[in-house]
Amino acid sequence: MVNKIKAALIIIGDEILSGRTHDANLNYIALWLGDLGIVLDEVRVIPDDGVRIQNAVNECRPSFDYVFTTGGIGPTHDDITAKNVAKAFDVPFLLNEEAKQLLEDNMGKGNLTEARLRMAMIPEGASLIKNPVSAAPGFQIGNVFVMAGIPIVMQSMLLDIEDRISGGAKIITKTIHVFEGESYFADILSEVEEHFENLTIGSYPFYKAGSYGATFVLRSVILTEVDDALVMLGEKIINRGSEFFAGEAVL
Amino acid sequence: MVNKIKAALIIIGDEILSGRTHDANLNYIALWLGDLGIVLDEVRVIPDDGVRIQNAVNECRPSFDYVFTTGGIGPTHDDITAKNVAKAFDVPFLLNEEAKQLLEDNMGKGNLTEARLRMAMIPEGASLIKNPVSAAPGFQIGNVFVMAGIPIVMQSMLLDIEDRISGGAKIITKTIHVFEGESYFADILSEVEEHFENLTIGSYPFYKAGSYGATFVLRSVILTEVDDALVMLGEKIINRGSEFFAGEAVL
Repeated sequence: MVNKIKAALIIIGDEILSGRTHDANLNYIALWLGDLGIVLDEVRVIPDDGVRIQNAVNECRPSFDYVFTTGGIGPTHDDITAKNVAKAFDVPFLLNEEAKQLLEDNMGKGNLTEARLRMAMIPEGASLIKNPVSAAPGFQIGNVFVMAGIPIVMQSMLLDIEDRISGGAKIITKTIHVFEGESYFADILSEVEEHFENLTIGSYPFYKAGSYGATFVLRSVILTEVDDALVMLGEKIINRGSEFFAGEAVL
Repeated sequence: MVNKIKAALIIIGDEILSGRTHDANLNYIALWLGDLGIVLDEVRVIPDDGVRIQNAVNECRPSFDYVFTTGGIGPTHDDITAKNVAKAFDVPFLLNEEAKQLLEDNMGKGNLTEARLRMAMIPEGASLIKNPVSAAPGFQIGNVFVMAGIPIVMQSMLLDIEDRISGGAKIITKTIHVFEGESYFADILSEVEEHFENLTIGSYPFYKAGSYGATFVLRSVILTEVDDALVMLGEKIINRGSEFFAGEAVL
């Protein structure tokens, strides 16, 4: 079995849990990690609560190669992520001169209010993550990357993280679909999956405007496994008298 | 402090973590729970992995009033949720005659293949959750509700859950926004929040086509708190020479 590099994402935000805001970061980070050959292996969405943030960070950082957080690093009273990541690591939470300079350069010294200075408070020993959109930086401490929650800001921070992490073998995905119920293919999906060491097959039923069927997603870090499995699965589908189609489902 | 009824959601699905599929259930369930006066207090997204499912269920069910799962209850090899919920509860995993009957009624006895019969395997002691869309039921065991992952099926299952759960006081939300940086309001947001026992204020900056600002969301189970806080916050905003606007942000 090829070893996988695994990441966890902690989304911090009452607004996601209340349903007020649709999270847009999970999917973006999942695809970004996939491109780097890193598997997003768990996501947690937790409230703006100090102890919950500390616990989530400390539960995740020994279990995953990388941990990402989004949300709660702005200037207001509900922005408590940085402080609680410092607590999780048991390090002092201090004014970071480099971060202060970034804010000054962006806002002008006269506009650096006390509230805005809170965005320059960073756990000791952390390195900053640049924010080309609105200056206030994120930071990395150990294997934990603390980012903004606003999607456009978060996405800009990922640019400064790419060089700091290393991926494993990239997962190759191929997809076919059928226009019959997935249950007819249950046995052959199992047979094909078991035949290859690194292969997983996901089966995703779809319903759409009177037609239904299922999409089978073959995934492995070994390209030849995916290719061979696709041929084997295709033959087995034809042998049972069914048709299959390449590419994504109609959903 | 008014006690809150709290729920956790466990989303089971490699396809969400890989970024292939956008989850649509979190937001729907968050709003549905909110209407019932129940707070969605944590979400976990985990892979199709038996041990991970067992651990997530057993970590969540003592800590929350209700636990919901979505995904992994179909007829194929990657549908392993039901079996692992049985393991989490340490109860036998058996063919459920009522579930079998539901499938027979829907599909016809002759079409009840071995694969489809897997959808009638239910942990002992669980009660079924009806699925008006495609018959294969979910189930409730203890405070855990196991549902399908396909949004339209999941949503239809919620109809059969509403009468089984009881909410607390419903959270009342009022929203105003400003067209200045949230940092200018950091102090007064803290002051207003601290003045009311059950009130929380979230501050959500927005950027849009050249304008930016912040939305302040006031939430409490006590209507008068929200109303009084809105007046107090409005006065403080005006006193510092700013304007505010009722309703949602432009984002």
